[in-house]
Amino acid sequence: MAIKDPMKQTKNTVRLIASGGSGDSGDSRDSADVESRLTDDHHQSLKLWLRMLSCTNLVEAEIRSRMRTEFGVTLPRFDLMAQLDRHPAGLRMGELSKRLMVTGGSITGITDQLEQEGLVLRDAVPDDRRAYSVRLTPAGRRAFKRMASVHESWITELMGSLSGAERNTMYALLSSMKRGLRAPEPLE
Amino acid sequence: MAIKDPMKQTKNTVRLIASGGSGDSGDSRDSADVESRLTDDHHQSLKLWLRMLSCTNLVEAEIRSRMRTEFGVTLPRFDLMAQLDRHPAGLRMGELSKRLMVTGGSITGITDQLEQEGLVLRDAVPDDRRAYSVRLTPAGRRAFKRMASVHESWITELMGSLSGAERNTMYALLSSMKRGLRAPEPLE
Repeated sequence: MAIKDPMKQTKNTVRLIASGGSGDSGDSRDSADVESRLTDDHHQSLKLWLRMLSCTNLVEAEIRSRMRTEFGVTLPRFDLMAQLDRHPAGLRMGELSKRLMVTGGSITGITDQLEQEGLVLRDAVPDDRRAYSVRLTPAGRRAFKRMASVHESWITELMGSLSGAERNTMYALLSSMKRGLRAPEPLE
Repeated sequence: MAIKDPMKQTKNTVRLIASGGSGDSGDSRDSADVESRLTDDHHQSLKLWLRMLSCTNLVEAEIRSRMRTEFGVTLPRFDLMAQLDRHPAGLRMGELSKRLMVTGGSITGITDQLEQEGLVLRDAVPDDRRAYSVRLTPAGRRAFKRMASVHESWITELMGSLSGAERNTMYALLSSMKRGLRAPEPLE
Protein backbone atom coordinates (compact mmCIF):
# COMPACT_ATOMS: atom_id res chain seq x y z
CA MET A 1 0.00 0.00 0.00
CA ALA A 2 1.72 3.14 -1.22
CA ILE A 3 1.08 6.28 0.76
CA LYS A 4 1.57 9.11 -1.66
CA ASP A 5 0.45 12.12 0.28
CA PRO A 6 -0.13 11.41 3.94
CA MET A 7 -0.64 15.12 4.65
CA LYS A 8 -3.73 15.28 2.54
CA GLN A 9 -5.14 11.93 3.52
CA THR A 10 -4.92 12.31 7.25
CA LYS A 11 -5.98 15.90 7.78
CA ASN A 12 -9.56 14.97 8.54
CA THR A 13 -8.81 11.98 10.70
CA VAL A 14 -6.48 14.03 12.84
CA ARG A 15 -9.34 16.38 13.57
CA LEU A 16 -11.64 13.43 14.29
CA ILE A 17 -9.15 12.02 16.77
CA ALA A 18 -8.53 15.43 18.25
CA SER A 19 -12.20 15.91 19.03
CA GLY A 20 -12.41 12.40 20.50
CA GLY A 21 -14.45 11.12 17.55
CA SER A 22 -16.52 8.14 18.62
CA GLY A 23 -17.75 5.06 16.82
CA ASP A 24 -15.71 2.17 15.51
CA SER A 25 -14.82 2.66 11.92
CA GLY A 26 -13.33 -0.25 10.11
CA ASP A 27 -13.57 -3.10 7.75
CA SER A 28 -17.29 -3.54 7.93
CA ARG A 29 -17.74 -0.25 6.12
CA ASP A 30 -18.70 -0.75 2.48
CA SER A 31 -16.91 2.18 0.98
CA ALA A 32 -15.78 1.94 -2.61
CA ASP A 33 -13.77 5.12 -2.23
CA VAL A 34 -10.14 4.13 -1.86
CA GLU A 35 -9.12 7.38 -0.22
CA SER A 36 -11.76 7.26 2.47
CA ARG A 37 -10.93 3.64 3.19
CA LEU A 38 -7.30 4.65 3.58
CA THR A 39 -8.40 7.40 5.95
CA ASP A 40 -10.33 4.85 7.99
CA ASP A 41 -7.19 2.73 8.14
CA HIS A 42 -5.17 5.65 9.45
CA HIS A 43 -7.85 6.58 11.92
CA GLN A 44 -8.15 3.04 13.22
CA SER A 45 -4.38 2.55 13.53
CA LEU A 46 -3.97 5.78 15.45
CA LYS A 47 -6.87 4.95 17.77
CA LEU A 48 -5.34 1.53 18.40
CA TRP A 49 -1.91 2.99 19.13
CA LEU A 50 -3.26 5.65 21.49
CA ARG A 51 -5.26 3.07 23.43
CA MET A 52 -2.29 0.73 23.62
CA LEU A 53 -0.06 3.55 24.82
CA SER A 54 -2.59 4.64 27.39
CA CYS A 55 -3.12 1.11 28.78
CA THR A 56 0.63 0.53 28.98
CA ASN A 57 1.14 3.85 30.75
CA LEU A 58 -1.66 3.18 33.23
CA VAL A 59 -0.32 -0.27 34.13
CA GLU A 60 3.25 1.00 34.34
CA ALA A 61 2.26 3.93 36.57
CA GLU A 62 0.37 1.59 38.87
CA ILE A 63 3.28 -0.85 39.09
CA ARG A 64 5.72 2.01 39.62
CA SER A 65 3.63 3.32 42.48
CA ARG A 66 3.18 -0.10 44.11
CA MET A 67 6.91 -0.90 43.76
CA ARG A 68 7.73 2.30 45.59
CA THR A 69 5.12 1.79 48.31
CA GLU A 70 5.62 -1.92 48.83
CA PHE A 71 9.39 -2.31 48.37
CA GLY A 72 10.77 1.25 48.32
CA VAL A 73 12.22 0.43 44.92
CA THR A 74 12.14 2.31 41.61
CA LEU A 75 10.84 0.61 38.47
CA PRO A 76 14.19 0.97 36.59
CA ARG A 77 15.90 -0.78 39.49
CA PHE A 78 13.41 -3.65 39.37
CA ASP A 79 13.72 -3.87 35.57
CA LEU A 80 17.50 -3.96 35.78
CA MET A 81 17.41 -6.77 38.33
CA ALA A 82 14.92 -8.64 36.11
CA GLN A 83 17.35 -8.48 33.20
CA LEU A 84 20.16 -9.78 35.40
CA ASP A 85 17.93 -12.56 36.70
CA ARG A 86 17.44 -13.72 33.11
CA HIS A 87 21.18 -13.69 32.49
CA PRO A 88 22.88 -15.38 35.45
CA ALA A 89 26.30 -15.14 33.80
CA GLY A 90 25.97 -11.36 33.77
CA LEU A 91 25.42 -8.61 31.23
CA ARG A 92 27.67 -5.81 30.06
CA MET A 93 26.59 -2.26 30.76
CA GLY A 94 25.99 -1.62 27.04
CA GLU A 95 23.71 -4.64 26.80
CA LEU A 96 21.78 -3.54 29.88
CA SER A 97 21.39 -0.07 28.44
CA LYS A 98 20.06 -1.43 25.13
CA ARG A 99 17.69 -3.88 26.78
CA LEU A 100 16.29 -1.35 29.22
CA MET A 101 16.20 1.49 26.67
CA VAL A 102 17.71 3.91 29.15
CA THR A 103 21.00 5.78 29.17
CA GLY A 104 24.23 4.26 30.45
CA GLY A 105 24.48 6.95 33.12
CA SER A 106 21.35 5.96 34.99
CA ILE A 107 22.34 2.28 34.77
CA THR A 108 25.69 3.08 36.32
CA GLY A 109 23.91 4.86 39.17
CA ILE A 110 21.56 1.99 39.87
CA THR A 111 24.38 -0.53 39.61
CA ASP A 112 26.52 1.43 42.10
CA GLN A 113 23.68 1.39 44.57
CA LEU A 114 22.95 -2.33 44.11
CA GLU A 115 26.65 -3.12 44.52
CA GLN A 116 26.80 -1.17 47.79
CA GLU A 117 23.86 -3.21 49.04
CA GLY A 118 25.60 -6.46 48.08
CA LEU A 119 22.95 -7.35 45.48
CA VAL A 120 25.15 -7.29 42.35
CA LEU A 121 28.80 -7.89 41.49
CA ARG A 122 30.91 -6.34 38.76
CA ASP A 123 33.18 -8.67 36.76
CA ALA A 124 36.01 -7.62 34.46
CA VAL A 125 35.46 -8.52 30.81
CA PRO A 126 38.48 -10.59 29.62
CA ASP A 127 39.18 -8.99 26.26
CA ASP A 128 38.20 -5.42 27.04
CA ARG A 129 40.02 -3.70 29.86
CA ARG A 130 37.53 -0.84 30.18
CA ALA A 131 34.41 -2.99 30.10
CA TYR A 132 32.76 -4.96 32.87
CA SER A 133 29.66 -7.05 33.27
CA VAL A 134 27.18 -7.13 36.12
CA ARG A 135 25.50 -10.10 37.71
CA LEU A 136 23.21 -10.74 40.68
CA THR A 137 24.67 -12.10 43.90
CA PRO A 138 22.71 -14.90 45.62
CA ALA A 139 21.27 -12.23 47.94
CA GLY A 140 20.35 -10.13 44.87
CA ARG A 141 18.63 -13.10 43.31
CA ARG A 142 16.63 -13.75 46.47
CA ALA A 143 15.65 -10.08 46.75
CA PHE A 144 14.53 -10.07 43.12
CA LYS A 145 12.51 -13.30 43.46
CA ARG A 146 10.60 -11.84 46.39
CA MET A 147 9.67 -8.72 44.40
CA ALA A 148 9.04 -10.65 41.17
CA SER A 149 6.45 -12.90 42.82
CA VAL A 150 4.46 -9.97 44.12
CA HIS A 151 4.94 -8.10 40.83
CA GLU A 152 3.51 -11.07 38.97
CA SER A 153 0.44 -11.18 41.20
CA TRP A 154 -0.11 -7.44 40.53
CA ILE A 155 0.12 -8.02 36.79
CA THR A 156 -2.32 -10.91 37.05
CA GLU A 157 -4.71 -8.63 38.89
CA LEU A 158 -4.29 -5.76 36.41
CA MET A 159 -4.82 -8.03 33.39
CA GLY A 160 -7.73 -9.69 35.17
CA SER A 161 -10.52 -7.98 33.23
CA LEU A 162 -9.61 -10.14 30.22
CA SER A 163 -10.54 -13.83 30.13
CA GLY A 164 -7.86 -16.42 29.48
CA ALA A 165 -9.00 -16.72 25.86
CA GLU A 166 -8.89 -12.96 25.42
CA ARG A 167 -5.40 -12.79 26.86
CA ASN A 168 -4.29 -15.50 24.43
CA THR A 169 -5.79 -13.59 21.51
CA MET A 170 -4.14 -10.37 22.54
CA TYR A 171 -0.80 -12.09 23.05
CA ALA A 172 -1.00 -13.54 19.53
CA LEU A 173 -1.88 -10.15 18.02
CA LEU A 174 0.95 -8.44 19.86
CA SER A 175 3.31 -11.14 18.63
CA SER A 176 2.26 -10.43 15.02
CA MET A 177 2.75 -6.75 15.63
CA LYS A 178 6.19 -7.32 17.11
CA ARG A 179 7.31 -9.46 14.20
CA GLY A 180 6.11 -6.72 11.83
CA LEU A 181 7.99 -4.07 13.77
CA ARG A 182 11.23 -5.98 13.48
CA ALA A 183 10.85 -6.93 9.85
CA PRO A 184 11.38 -3.67 7.92
CA GLU A 185 14.39 -2.51 9.89
CA PRO A 186 15.81 -4.12 13.00
CA LEU A 187 14.95 -2.02 16.04
CA GLU A 188 16.95 -4.05 18.51
CA MET B 1 -10.27 -14.88 42.80
CA ALA B 2 -8.49 -14.59 46.12
CA ILE B 3 -4.73 -14.71 46.00
CA LYS B 4 -3.62 -16.05 49.34
CA ASP B 5 0.07 -16.58 48.89
CA PRO B 6 1.39 -15.15 45.66
CA MET B 7 4.97 -15.91 46.72
CA LYS B 8 4.39 -19.62 46.72
CA GLN B 9 2.18 -19.76 43.66
CA THR B 10 4.40 -17.82 41.31
CA LYS B 11 7.84 -19.07 42.19
CA ASN B 12 7.91 -21.56 39.36
CA THR B 13 6.41 -19.31 36.73
CA VAL B 14 8.93 -16.62 37.51
CA ARG B 15 11.66 -19.09 36.73
CA LEU B 16 9.87 -20.13 33.55
CA ILE B 17 9.62 -16.52 32.39
CA ALA B 18 13.17 -15.86 33.47
CA SER B 19 14.50 -18.64 31.26
CA GLY B 20 12.40 -17.43 28.36
CA GLY B 21 10.00 -20.36 28.67
CA SER B 22 8.36 -21.07 25.33
CA GLY B 23 5.04 -22.52 24.34
CA ASP B 24 1.61 -21.03 24.79
CA SER B 25 0.08 -22.20 27.99
CA GLY B 26 -3.51 -21.35 28.61
CA ASP B 27 -7.10 -22.28 28.60
CA SER B 28 -6.80 -25.26 26.35
CA ARG B 29 -4.92 -27.09 29.07
CA ASP B 30 -7.09 -29.61 30.85
CA SER B 31 -5.71 -29.30 34.30
CA ALA B 32 -7.97 -30.11 37.22
CA ASP B 33 -5.40 -28.78 39.65
CA VAL B 34 -6.55 -25.34 40.80
CA GLU B 35 -3.10 -24.23 41.84
CA SER B 36 -1.44 -25.12 38.56
CA ARG B 37 -4.25 -23.40 36.66
CA LEU B 38 -3.65 -20.31 38.76
CA THR B 39 0.03 -20.53 37.94
CA ASP B 40 -0.83 -20.71 34.23
CA ASP B 41 -2.95 -17.61 34.68
CA HIS B 42 -0.08 -15.75 36.26
CA HIS B 43 2.34 -16.95 33.64
CA GLN B 44 0.03 -15.94 30.80
CA SER B 45 -0.72 -12.50 32.27
CA LEU B 46 2.95 -11.74 32.77
CA LYS B 47 3.81 -12.90 29.25
CA LEU B 48 1.04 -10.71 27.87
CA TRP B 49 2.19 -7.69 29.85
CA LEU B 50 5.85 -8.11 28.86
CA ARG B 51 4.91 -8.41 25.18
CA MET B 52 2.63 -5.38 25.40
CA LEU B 53 5.34 -3.36 27.11
CA SER B 54 7.93 -4.42 24.56
CA CYS B 55 5.69 -3.56 21.56
CA THR B 56 4.83 -0.19 23.05
CA ASN B 57 8.48 0.57 23.74
CA LEU B 58 9.54 -0.46 20.24
CA VAL B 59 6.91 1.72 18.56
CA GLU B 60 7.63 4.64 20.87
CA ALA B 61 11.38 4.41 20.28
CA GLU B 62 10.82 4.37 16.53
CA ILE B 63 8.47 7.37 16.66
CA ARG B 64 10.86 9.21 18.97
CA SER B 65 13.71 8.65 16.55
CA ARG B 66 11.69 9.67 13.48
CA MET B 67 10.34 12.80 15.24
CA ARG B 68 13.89 13.87 15.98
CA THR B 69 15.20 13.11 12.50
CA GLU B 70 12.25 14.44 10.52
CA PHE B 71 11.18 17.45 12.60
CA GLY B 72 13.99 17.99 15.12
CA VAL B 73 11.37 17.65 17.83
CA THR B 74 11.28 15.59 21.03
CA LEU B 75 8.41 13.23 21.71
CA PRO B 76 7.32 15.04 24.93
CA ARG B 77 7.07 18.26 22.93
CA PHE B 78 4.91 16.58 20.28
CA ASP B 79 2.74 14.95 22.97
CA LEU B 80 2.28 18.28 24.75
CA MET B 81 1.21 19.98 21.51
CA ALA B 82 -1.19 17.07 20.84
CA GLN B 83 -2.86 17.66 24.20
CA LEU B 84 -3.21 21.37 23.47
CA ASP B 85 -4.61 20.62 20.03
CA ARG B 86 -7.36 18.59 21.69
CA HIS B 87 -8.14 21.44 24.06
CA PRO B 88 -8.27 24.64 22.03
CA ALA B 89 -9.36 26.68 25.07
CA GLY B 90 -6.14 25.76 26.81
CA LEU B 91 -5.02 23.52 29.66
CA ARG B 92 -3.55 24.34 33.04
CA MET B 93 -0.03 23.17 33.78
CA GLY B 94 -1.31 20.70 36.36
CA GLU B 95 -3.71 19.16 33.86
CA LEU B 96 -0.94 18.87 31.27
CA SER B 97 1.33 17.22 33.80
CA LYS B 98 -1.36 14.70 34.74
CA ARG B 99 -2.29 13.93 31.14
CA LEU B 100 1.28 13.51 29.99
CA MET B 101 2.38 11.68 33.14
CA VAL B 102 5.53 13.77 33.40
CA THR B 103 6.71 16.23 36.02
CA GLY B 104 5.67 19.87 36.02
CA GLY B 105 9.28 20.94 35.64
CA SER B 106 9.79 19.42 32.22
CA ILE B 107 6.43 20.78 31.04
CA THR B 108 7.48 24.28 32.09
CA GLY B 109 10.67 23.89 30.09
CA ILE B 110 8.90 22.74 26.93
CA THR B 111 6.25 25.46 27.32
CA ASP B 112 8.91 28.16 27.67
CA GLN B 113 10.52 27.01 24.46
CA LEU B 114 7.22 26.81 22.55
CA GLU B 115 6.28 30.29 23.78
CA GLN B 116 9.59 31.72 22.56
CA GLU B 117 8.88 30.20 19.14
CA GLY B 118 5.40 31.74 19.08
CA LEU B 119 3.66 28.36 19.09
CA VAL B 120 1.83 28.64 22.43
CA LEU B 121 0.42 31.42 24.61
CA ARG B 122 0.05 31.56 28.39
CA ASP B 123 -3.23 32.89 29.79
CA ALA B 124 -3.89 33.96 33.35
CA VAL B 125 -6.46 31.81 35.19
CA PRO B 126 -9.20 34.14 36.54
CA ASP B 127 -9.67 32.75 40.05
CA ASP B 128 -6.10 31.69 40.77
CA ARG B 129 -3.42 34.35 40.61
CA ARG B 130 -0.52 31.92 40.55
CA ALA B 131 -1.97 29.59 37.90
CA TYR B 132 -2.01 29.93 34.14
CA SER B 133 -3.20 27.88 31.23
CA VAL B 134 -1.48 27.21 27.92
CA ARG B 135 -2.97 27.10 24.44
CA LEU B 136 -1.70 26.76 20.89
CA THR B 137 -1.41 29.86 18.70
CA PRO B 138 -2.65 29.54 15.11
CA ALA B 139 0.99 29.03 14.08
CA GLY B 140 1.32 26.37 16.78
CA ARG B 141 -1.77 24.62 15.52
CA ARG B 142 -0.45 24.60 11.95
CA ALA B 143 2.93 23.29 13.08
CA PHE B 144 1.22 20.52 15.05
CA LYS B 145 -1.07 19.53 12.16
CA ARG B 146 1.91 19.12 9.86
CA MET B 147 3.65 16.81 12.31
CA ALA B 148 0.46 14.97 13.29
CA SER B 149 -0.26 14.01 9.68
CA VAL B 150 3.15 12.47 9.20
CA HIS B 151 3.00 10.90 12.68
CA GLU B 152 -0.29 9.26 11.76
CA SER B 153 1.15 7.79 8.58
CA TRP B 154 4.05 6.35 10.61
CA ILE B 155 1.62 4.75 13.05
CA THR B 156 -0.38 3.31 10.16
CA GLU B 157 2.82 1.82 8.80
CA LEU B 158 3.94 0.44 12.19
CA MET B 159 0.52 -1.14 12.89
CA GLY B 160 0.42 -2.44 9.31
CA SER B 161 1.24 -6.06 10.10
CA LEU B 162 -2.26 -6.42 11.59
CA SER B 163 -5.31 -6.62 9.35
CA GLY B 164 -8.19 -4.23 9.87
CA ALA B 165 -10.16 -6.95 11.64
CA GLU B 166 -7.20 -7.73 13.91
CA ARG B 167 -6.78 -4.07 14.77
CA ASN B 168 -10.47 -3.88 15.68
CA THR B 169 -10.14 -6.95 17.90
CA MET B 170 -7.09 -5.57 19.65
CA TYR B 171 -8.74 -2.19 20.14
CA ALA B 172 -11.74 -3.88 21.76
CA LEU B 173 -9.52 -5.97 24.06
CA LEU B 174 -7.49 -2.93 25.09
CA SER B 175 -10.74 -1.08 25.80
CA SER B 176 -11.84 -3.89 28.14
CA MET B 177 -8.47 -3.81 29.81
CA LYS B 178 -8.63 -0.06 30.24
CA ARG B 179 -12.09 -0.19 31.80
CA GLY B 180 -10.82 -2.86 34.20
CA LEU B 181 -7.82 -0.73 35.11
CA ARG B 182 -10.01 2.19 36.03
CA ALA B 183 -12.62 0.20 37.91
CA PRO B 184 -10.91 -0.86 41.16
CA GLU B 185 -9.33 2.50 41.91
CA PRO B 186 -9.32 5.53 39.64
CA LEU B 187 -5.87 5.98 38.13
CA GLU B 188 -6.60 9.23 36.39
